[in-house]
Amino acid sequence: MSFKAERQRLSAFFQFGQSVDCVVFGYDGSELQILVIERGAEPFFGYEALPGDLVRMDEDIDEAATRILHDLTGLNNVFLDQLKTFGSVQRHPLGRVVTTAFYSLINQTKYNPRPASWAVKARWKSLGELHEMAFDHREILQTALDALQRQVRQHPIGFELLPEEFTLAQLQGLYEAVLNTQFDKANFRKKILSMEVLKALDKTQKAVRHRPARLYKFDPQRYHSLAKQGFLFEV
Amino acid sequence: MSFKAERQRLSAFFQFGQSVDCVVFGYDGSELQILVIERGAEPFFGYEALPGDLVRMDEDIDEAATRILHDLTGLNNVFLDQLKTFGSVQRHPLGRVVTTAFYSLINQTKYNPRPASWAVKARWKSLGELHEMAFDHREILQTALDALQRQVRQHPIGFELLPEEFTLAQLQGLYEAVLNTQFDKANFRKKILSMEVLKALDKTQKAVRHRPARLYKFDPQRYHSLAKQGFLFEV
Repeated sequence: MSFKAERQRLSAFFQFGQSVDCVVFGYDGSELQILVIERGAEPFFGYEALPGDLVRMDEDIDEAATRILHDLTGLNNVFLDQLKTFGSVQRHPLGRVVTTAFYSLINQTKYNPRPASWAVKARWKSLGELHEMAFDHREILQTALDALQRQVRQHPIGFELLPEEFTLAQLQGLYEAVLNTQFDKANFRKKILSMEVLKALDKTQKAVRHRPARLYKFDPQRYHSLAKQGFLFEV
Repeated sequence: MSFKAERQRLSAFFQFGQSVDCVVFGYDGSELQILVIERGAEPFFGYEALPGDLVRMDEDIDEAATRILHDLTGLNNVFLDQLKTFGSVQRHPLGRVVTTAFYSLINQTKYNPRPASWAVKARWKSLGELHEMAFDHREILQTALDALQRQVRQHPIGFELLPEEFTLAQLQGLYEAVLNTQFDKANFRKKILSMEVLKALDKTQKAVRHRPARLYKFDPQRYHSLAKQGFLFEV
C-alpha cells in the first residue's frame, strides 16, 4: 500500500488537537507564585488558566510552548522544560486535545508579564489566591508542584527563583515556601553551607531596617556539577 | 460563539495523530536489553522499532500505552511510566504524529514476549544488537537510557530488573550494565549494604559451580521510603 493510501486508511486517527500549557513558577520573596492568565476565549471564558493554546500543524511542540507563552504573556527567553503529557479523553470540551505541559522557574524581577492575544489578564498569583481553573489545569499545576518539590530536594534548581545575590534568610524562605514547611535557621544554614554550592560575597544587603545580612551567590561550577549529578538537600 | 462554531473555526488544528511508544528495559544477567518489534506495516516496514502505535480517539493515552504494548508483544500487567513527548513536525511520514513515550523496567524472566497484530517479531535485544530503528525511535531510546542512568543513581529502581532474590554480584553486574562502567567489588558491596535497602537471606545460590553466594532481597519498607525520598548511589 502506498503511504498516501495508508494515510487515507488511518484518517480516522488524525483528528487530535495538540496543545501546550506552561507552568511558570516565581517567588515574590515570601510566597511561591504561578503565572496565570484570565481566558478571554471559549471554552472556559473568564476562568483562570495556565498560559496555553493549540499547537499549529507546522510547529514543533517545544517551539510552540515558547511561542504561546510569549503570545499570551509577553514573556521571552524563558527556558521551558517538559513536565508531562495529559491525554484523558474528556479533558477538552471542543474535541480530543492532548496537552503537553512545560514548566519553568524564573526570577520574577526579571520578567514583566502583560496580557496579549486572547488573554485578558496575565499575572502572578500565589497558590492560595487561585480560583477554579480551566480544563484540567489544576491537576497539571499540582503535578508541576509535586515535581518541583521533588526536584528542589535533589537538585539545586530552587535558586533559579531568586535574584542573583541573596541572603541565607531569602534562600531559607524560598525552600520553606516551595516545600510548605519551616526549617530551623541554624540547621538550614549549616546544611546549605556544607554543600559548598554558595559563594559568600563581600557585600551585605542595602536599605533594610535590621542589621544587613551577608549576600551570597552560587558557585556556578559547583552548582552545575551538583545539578547534573544530583544531591540530597535533606533539611 | 457556540462551542460547535468554535470547534469548526479551529478545525485546521485538529489533524494531529497521537501515538505512544514503549521503551521496556530488561536485564538478561549480563546485558541491559530492550524489547523491540520488527514492523510488518508501512511506514518503515521491516525495521526494528519500539512497540508503539496510534492512539484511538476514544482512549486515554495511558490506557493506550498498556493496550498497544499488549497488542504487539503480548505483555500484560507492565507498569509504564511516562518518559517524554516527542513532537517534531517531520517525525512521521504519514502525517503530523506526536508520540508520547513510556518506559518500564521489568524482570525478563517473568514475561515472555510474542509478536502479534502487525508486529512480525517481538524480542529482547541488547543495545549493541540493534539495527537502524524506525522513526525517531533511536532518539527516544537514548532519552530513556539517559533517564534510566540518572534514576538508578538516585532511586533504588534498578532492582526491578532483577529476580526477587539475587546475589550482590548480580546487582553489581546490573549497575555496571546500566551505567556502562565497572565498579570495585569491595567498594560496591560496602556502599550498597550501607544503604540498608537489602535484606540478607539465609539462603545461597543453587546449581552454580563456584562457591554459592548469599542471596538478598529488598527490605520493602526501606525500599519504598528511599524510592520516594531519593538517595544517592555514588559508587
